[in-house]
Amino acid sequence: MGSLNDIGVAAGINILSAVGFLLVFAVVRIQPINDRVYFPKWYLKGTRSSPRHIGNVLSKFVNADVSTYLRFLNWMPAALKMPEPELIEHAGLDSAVYVRIYLLGLKIFVPITVLAFSVLVPVNWTSATLGDDEEGLSYDQIDKLSISNLGQGSKRFWVHIGMAYVFTFWTFYVLYHEYKVITTMRLHFLANQNRRPDQFTVLVRNIPADPDETVGEHVEHFFAVNHREHYLSHQVVYNANTLASLVEKKKGLQNWLVYYENQHAKNPEKELIIKTGLWGLWGEKVDALQHYKTTIEELCKQEDEERQKVISDPKAIMPAAFVSFNSQWGAAVCAQTQQTSNPTVWLTEWAPEPRDVYWPNLAIPFVELSVRRLIMAVALFFLTFFFMVPIALVQSVANLDDIERVLPFLKPIIERNGPRSVIQGFLPGIALKIFLIFLPTILMAMSKIEGHVSLSGLERRTASKYFLFIFVNVFLGSVVAGTAFQQLNSFIHQSTNKIPETIGESIPMKATFFITYIMVDGWAGIAAEVLRLKPLIMFHIKNTFLVRTEQDREQAMDPGSLEFGSTEPRIQLYFLLGLVYAVVTPIILPFIIVFFGLAYLVFRHQIINVYNQQYESGAQFWPGVHGRIVTALVISQILLIGLLSTQEAEQSTVALLPLPVLTIWFHYVCKGRFEPAYIKCPLQAGSKRILLISSPYITADDIHIVSNVKREQHLMFAGGHGEGHAATGKRPDAEPERVPQGRIRAPGLPQR
Amino acid sequence: MGSLNDIGVAAGINILSAVGFLLVFAVVRIQPINDRVYFPKWYLKGTRSSPRHIGNVLSKFVNADVSTYLRFLNWMPAALKMPEPELIEHAGLDSAVYVRIYLLGLKIFVPITVLAFSVLVPVNWTSATLGDDEEGLSYDQIDKLSISNLGQGSKRFWVHIGMAYVFTFWTFYVLYHEYKVITTMRLHFLANQNRRPDQFTVLVRNIPADPDETVGEHVEHFFAVNHREHYLSHQVVYNANTLASLVEKKKGLQNWLVYYENQHAKNPEKELIIKTGLWGLWGEKVDALQHYKTTIEELCKQEDEERQKVISDPKAIMPAAFVSFNSQWGAAVCAQTQQTSNPTVWLTEWAPEPRDVYWPNLAIPFVELSVRRLIMAVALFFLTFFFMVPIALVQSVANLDDIERVLPFLKPIIERNGPRSVIQGFLPGIALKIFLIFLPTILMAMSKIEGHVSLSGLERRTASKYFLFIFVNVFLGSVVAGTAFQQLNSFIHQSTNKIPETIGESIPMKATFFITYIMVDGWAGIAAEVLRLKPLIMFHIKNTFLVRTEQDREQAMDPGSLEFGSTEPRIQLYFLLGLVYAVVTPIILPFIIVFFGLAYLVFRHQIINVYNQQYESGAQFWPGVHGRIVTALVISQILLIGLLSTQEAEQSTVALLPLPVLTIWFHYVCKGRFEPAYIKCPLQAGSKRILLISSPYITADDIHIVSNVKREQHLMFAGGHGEGHAATGKRPDAEPERVPQGRIRAPGLPQR
Repeated sequence: MGSLNDIGVAAGINILSAVGFLLVFAVVRIQPINDRVYFPKWYLKGTRSSPRHIGNVLSKFVNADVSTYLRFLNWMPAALKMPEPELIEHAGLDSAVYVRIYLLGLKIFVPITVLAFSVLVPVNWTSATLGDDEEGLSYDQIDKLSISNLGQGSKRFWVHIGMAYVFTFWTFYVLYHEYKVITTMRLHFLANQNRRPDQFTVLVRNIPADPDETVGEHVEHFFAVNHREHYLSHQVVYNANTLASLVEKKKGLQNWLVYYENQHAKNPEKELIIKTGLWGLWGEKVDALQHYKTTIEELCKQEDEERQKVISDPKAIMPAAFVSFNSQWGAAVCAQTQQTSNPTVWLTEWAPEPRDVYWPNLAIPFVELSVRRLIMAVALFFLTFFFMVPIALVQSVANLDDIERVLPFLKPIIERNGPRSVIQGFLPGIALKIFLIFLPTILMAMSKIEGHVSLSGLERRTASKYFLFIFVNVFLGSVVAGTAFQQLNSFIHQSTNKIPETIGESIPMKATFFITYIMVDGWAGIAAEVLRLKPLIMFHIKNTFLVRTEQDREQAMDPGSLEFGSTEPRIQLYFLLGLVYAVVTPIILPFIIVFFGLAYLVFRHQIINVYNQQYESGAQFWPGVHGRIVTALVISQILLIGLLSTQEAEQSTVALLPLPVLTIWFHYVCKGRFEPAYIKCPLQAGSKRILLISSPYITADDIHIVSNVKREQHLMFAGGHGEGHAATGKRPDAEPERVPQGRIRAPGLPQR
Repeated sequence: MGSLNDIGVAAGINILSAVGFLLVFAVVRIQPINDRVYFPKWYLKGTRSSPRHIGNVLSKFVNADVSTYLRFLNWMPAALKMPEPELIEHAGLDSAVYVRIYLLGLKIFVPITVLAFSVLVPVNWTSATLGDDEEGLSYDQIDKLSISNLGQGSKRFWVHIGMAYVFTFWTFYVLYHEYKVITTMRLHFLANQNRRPDQFTVLVRNIPADPDETVGEHVEHFFAVNHREHYLSHQVVYNANTLASLVEKKKGLQNWLVYYENQHAKNPEKELIIKTGLWGLWGEKVDALQHYKTTIEELCKQEDEERQKVISDPKAIMPAAFVSFNSQWGAAVCAQTQQTSNPTVWLTEWAPEPRDVYWPNLAIPFVELSVRRLIMAVALFFLTFFFMVPIALVQSVANLDDIERVLPFLKPIIERNGPRSVIQGFLPGIALKIFLIFLPTILMAMSKIEGHVSLSGLERRTASKYFLFIFVNVFLGSVVAGTAFQQLNSFIHQSTNKIPETIGESIPMKATFFITYIMVDGWAGIAAEVLRLKPLIMFHIKNTFLVRTEQDREQAMDPGSLEFGSTEPRIQLYFLLGLVYAVVTPIILPFIIVFFGLAYLVFRHQIINVYNQQYESGAQFWPGVHGRIVTALVISQILLIGLLSTQEAEQSTVALLPLPVLTIWFHYVCKGRFEPAYIKCPLQAGSKRILLISSPYITADDIHIVSNVKREQHLMFAGGHGEGHAATGKRPDAEPERVPQGRIRAPGLPQR
């Protein structure tokens, strides 16, 4: 365990590096050349144009205005200045609520810290146990501030027990209040949305096959009978993989056409000759403009043919449909009710908004879905507890002596000292690092296999999987040194009530480690986040070598979304650490507060200026966030019980037992009180009515490829989702009683 | 452990006693004097009249027809003869499905027994381990038939593992099939019910207070706005305790009036003089007929006044209402959807049928409800694991030496040997026995505190609590001798994977005990059930001393309902024993089959001739039954893993691990596939429409006391539920477009 000095040094280093990052950021961000990296959101909104269009050549690249350097920290107040309603308007509710997670951390931990430092720290400090030992073993000062300073069976443990109750009830209060506020925000947000099409649309899956009717007719008849007064129209889902690849190809060609047209406009005399073969290196020489125009024309024809084929081919129709209703009431009714006596067919749920739909999963049959979930549950278990096994295998294969034996000709290289030590030192770490980088992707793939139909749902499922992994492998793994597999093995060979004891006992000893972890992973990580080093480099590389047209530039600066599935569980780790250590070693709390404060600042800046959400789920992730904090609370209570039961304070253990019971009960109360607002839509709010809806789920002129489809069968006529809208930042709102122009209905589509 | 001989003897004794019971039953049931005890259901249906009205005096009491004695066993084929649709028509779906639980036992265990005896028994028998030991310790033959006969690490365990898989999959198949059949039966049953009022009615609870409107107006406005096209009428719930007690009093007086009128009719000359004081012993002498007529008239007036008072007093209105819709579709929509953005108010659910409503729980606020559930969960835990503590206290108080010290004058009595040994031997047992007799009542009271709104819901919750108790205290308590508290204590001080090992290891040794248990509790218990000794005695006592009028006689013969909450968990114990021992000691299986067969026969007879269900829930309990069998399956698998892991067969343990995972998965598949049919009503079926419904939830001429209401505040104008209908056996069907006659609407009741 480290002394206060050690921690001071570490803190100094980390503060310096964080400040360094922030300084670099402050300088880099005001350079015009980087403007598109640090303010992409404003470009996408169309309210900011490149500062490079004005001024002289130098000022296009470097900012020479000294006054801006003096005000280099003004992004911080600017980030805080935007009021919340405007923030919601600007960045969406998802993002606005996401930064509230950090705020929630501050709300929970600032009062807890004040209380812990005014009550627990003096109590710990004045306990003489560790100080009495003057014979040589020098105890660290941190231990004098922690619960370890109390002797076995000390009466002072009652103070800690009381504090555990106070902290728990404070957390209850803040969590409950926050859940309430965010639920209100969500309902307000949904009510204010001006006739969003998904508020009138229901996704119907597992439509049973009918021998006499097509899927479209079947849907129409079913809903016309069972929702007579509210059914408006429907759109079946088509499998149009071929069509989608044609569209994608056409887009690429059109981009080239734009490029050559620009070239031609700049220099009308120059003949633009390209070769038709591979990568323009071989083949016949043709005129570029002419070539692209004719190819695009051909593709258009092919597209039309393919479209006709898809529409007329019953095999291309998936057993899923989007059904629209003439009132929100009708849609709410349909989404919340069971349609037939067989609950595995005609499954209805609120349609995700068009950008949020995950198309490949729309047509999975009921039984297959449950088999998939079973397999993924088993896989998650093995991934969490045995992920070290394949990595250890890779590492053993990468053993240099083995390599030498198998490939003797490498011997001279390997036996030289330099490379040997480098490889020996790095290889094992690299295998692990690569795995950890790909982990969110792996977990996301698993969620996709589970068959959720919306991107937001996928993110939420990934987050809960990732939290499990972090809890087992980062938290428990650090506390009880050893891989999860070893832990599992030792735990199942241990008495049930010994497990919390074993973990609880090691908790105080790991405080220094976690303080360092918070500084390195938390502080420096957040500072690196604001600098956006990787996007900065990538943008300049792309801008220099690949960007030909405006469309290319927009793609190059695409800032992406907040990756909820991988960032949120990491925040949860700090909640867990804070709650676990609040009673045990309160000295860790200020570090967590700094993290939450800094992160709040940075992410508020990022969602204002950088990130552009791909979809808007209306803070549907909050029940998950709430649930994980409650889980962390229960874990912290069980570990405290374990710790105290090793301190010969049996009565105190009993006094703590009601805490986890109360916490679980609190969870159910909140669930019953608020969760329905995230799943259902109340009928009372459903008075909005429309007469005609142009479904954003269907227009035939804009088709997206659904990648990673194994059986190559799922795809549909899909407009209004994905990059198209994300890139332009437009909401796919459909104005009522008006078919938006520029959208051509595919002829022959079944429609009422 | 017993030898085959011991078991043979025990079986012989039990078979003899069971046959004895059955013989007595066969003789007793054909005596005319007992006719109302053994065929009350037919009396209630009005299709059977007393055989005592015909023949001479002797034949009124004793059956002298010799031929009926020769056919004394013909009740058995008669019980099986009634086809199922007719049985449903006659006894209701609940009862018909209840006897299918026994049939399910036969379906699961007959093939398993055949397979176990043709495969496992030979494998166990030919293993030489226990037989080799010729030196003196003689092993029992039962052990030679059980898994214990295999040596440590024997290869033959693989046969048992294979069989565990076969048994599991067979159970899956039967369970799935049965769930499907019963779901179909339920939907068919509901569809065939001719416009049952509860199919159009939704129970609304937690109606928020409105400063400007009464509850009735508030409900009307809310539903008229939010369910414009379907809302028909509503009925608020009144608290009318005083009124109810008046009605009850009137009923008693009317019974006396009928009695005296009968007396008068028999002997018109005799003057009927009674005293008005206590029990007719003191006070003024008056003419009986006149006295009762005037008193009843007065009560009628008081009733009218009280009724007016209740209706006009806003404080008497509870925040709950029954809302009726003009179509099943409208009611289905309202019951399944969330009404407002606050999910704790305007809670809607399908109304239980009128007889099934548990009135006192209709008006519990949301927060209070969750507090109650928390307290009951904690109470259940303590009841299950610490129920021995108060009993041990009682027993220690009842210690004779202590009694002698406190009450020295009892010394001469206590010190005599006879009473001493009797009391010493019986007292501890009696305390436990009394507790066990009252246990279902205690559990039912706990369910009531939990706040369920229907009697069927209360029964279901009680059943699951009782199953937990039986599993912990009967099954585990017998396997690992010792109280649940001792077990809990030893378990939490034991390694997690040692718990199934400890239990699993003792399993084979307890086979003999459980075989005896099945014979005593199962066989003899069922035989006693058919004899109905207690109702037989009670009826004759009442008939002799208390019965004055026909109404009294009907009350005396009231057969009651099947007590689902206390009988079903006991059946589940047999499922558990069968599944646990199927692989371990198959010799137990024939005993279980005999139990299920006998019980099926007896209960089919009982529901045809005796029991009269108080309510009809449409087999809503099946998901619980299914869930508990699946739980038993998982328990059996875990115990088998535990047992095998003590037999030095590590690989086999691993080979069994997928079983519990698969079983849990199977549970979720069934839940998703079938459970909604027991909670929701599909919209497709909801095409029935009515124009006017006379709510059976409200008529003012028939009011019931709700007993056990602590705060004396819940009661309502309630007709059509409880004994009134139960006793006459009529369904509370309301014919459409017609207000049933004989029901007087209370004037001024809010109604649309």
